[in-house]
Amino acid sequence: MTMLNKDMTLCISLSARPSNNGTRFHNFLYEALELNWIYKAFAPTDLGQAIAGVRGLGIRGCAISMPYKEDVIALVDRMDPSATAIDSVNTIVNDDGVLTAYNTDYSAIAQLIERNRLDAGSSVLLRGSGGMAKATAAAFRDAGFTDVTIVARNEANGRALAGLYGFAWLPDADDATADVLVNVTPIGMAGGAEEHALAFSADAIAAASVVFDVVALPAETPFVAAGRAAGKTVITGAEVATLQALEQFVLYTGIRPSDEQVRAAEEFVRAAP
Amino acid sequence: MTMLNKDMTLCISLSARPSNNGTRFHNFLYEALELNWIYKAFAPTDLGQAIAGVRGLGIRGCAISMPYKEDVIALVDRMDPSATAIDSVNTIVNDDGVLTAYNTDYSAIAQLIERNRLDAGSSVLLRGSGGMAKATAAAFRDAGFTDVTIVARNEANGRALAGLYGFAWLPDADDATADVLVNVTPIGMAGGAEEHALAFSADAIAAASVVFDVVALPAETPFVAAGRAAGKTVITGAEVATLQALEQFVLYTGIRPSDEQVRAAEEFVRAAP
Repeated sequence: MTMLNKDMTLCISLSARPSNNGTRFHNFLYEALELNWIYKAFAPTDLGQAIAGVRGLGIRGCAISMPYKEDVIALVDRMDPSATAIDSVNTIVNDDGVLTAYNTDYSAIAQLIERNRLDAGSSVLLRGSGGMAKATAAAFRDAGFTDVTIVARNEANGRALAGLYGFAWLPDADDATADVLVNVTPIGMAGGAEEHALAFSADAIAAASVVFDVVALPAETPFVAAGRAAGKTVITGAEVATLQALEQFVLYTGIRPSDEQVRAAEEFVRAAP
Repeated sequence: MTMLNKDMTLCISLSARPSNNGTRFHNFLYEALELNWIYKAFAPTDLGQAIAGVRGLGIRGCAISMPYKEDVIALVDRMDPSATAIDSVNTIVNDDGVLTAYNTDYSAIAQLIERNRLDAGSSVLLRGSGGMAKATAAAFRDAGFTDVTIVARNEANGRALAGLYGFAWLPDADDATADVLVNVTPIGMAGGAEEHALAFSADAIAAASVVFDVVALPAETPFVAAGRAAGKTVITGAEVATLQALEQFVLYTGIRPSDEQVRAAEEFVRAAP
């Protein structure tokens, strides 16, 4: 800590239950790129006061996590289209006191749809109805996909999300198939109640061409593993997580690290004690 | 920076023109004491928003420098007697959202008067009329000194400060002598217009028993050097600066470092590139 100095630029995150991932990812890249910056996660006691602090202390960037992604909208000055697309903010950039809100989850998913050349004519089953499912559905809609079915046990939430984008709704995915299967539920998440469950059936995976899991931990969920074993195009939640953090890094610093630096930062995050 | 983590406790300073001293002093001691804490100086864009940030982000401690020492009084919840003594704050401690204001400049001077066993019956010449002169005058008054003369070229400021504590005022120190000589002006300060000047005449120094300089940079001002050469009891501004920073450290962490650790931290501050 003895190398810390008064001139360092600070970036932070605000979350009710912070993880160490952002702190490790950003600080690793600051060091790799020899930037005089530091990053630290906070669990704020009051969102309004925390955002006042971002302004008053000249904090350059601020990641926004649960449960603040909607409430923070009233506290910023400008909304980037990535945030207005889903009325949800996960990133704030402070340009000399002007706070602009972004959503890099949305941008990351949009980029992964493009990079993996998913065909907008494909049918899509999208499991989930929370904030991240909304970001995912919006990215598919904005990429031109129309044949999308939201799969959600909770009818009100499922119908609401489907209705936003003109998509269909199904209460469960038991017999459904599609070209693209997307999981945006905690099924398969490390330490969760359904850690060992498959987000979609083996039959659905066999019939699909793309397996897309937004669950980031573990990097290899049962759904991702089944997709790989079946030779499908696989997109993982770890890719989403890294890409959204990388987009935050670029928004804050204006610098795009090399692929090798990003891989090294990912490894450093995974090696957390 | 790769050892930074989400659980670190943050302390900061707010100053229009931050130095690196606090950042180096505190971070050095955090490391020496294996505390999972970090410290960083800020030049706030807005004091009210910065203090809101101290609350909202749960920042544990906050040093207050020029020009915020008076304005911040309206923004805290409680005033410690060290701050009410001079209506000036240089330290805020955040206990679960309750902000208590202290003045460790005052406490440091009070401690140095006590440690050096200055006799309350002594006569004192105190040069200066700014905020630090006020802290110094209050500490002498509260230690029982009554024969104190404020020396200040500006009559309004000098009379005002003298009047606060029932002291005398003189426009200059040319022919005055006293047992205790105290300099709280920039005379002798490194890089200042009067860098090589003596705060008191050689005759006054010869007639005094104690030479007390509150100027911290350099550690050996001409006044301090003359006092040492004449075999007087010498108290330096570097001692004041270290002691006030140490008292901040103790207020924030509840831990009192060893004398050896404090000396090592002082050396680290002085070794700044």
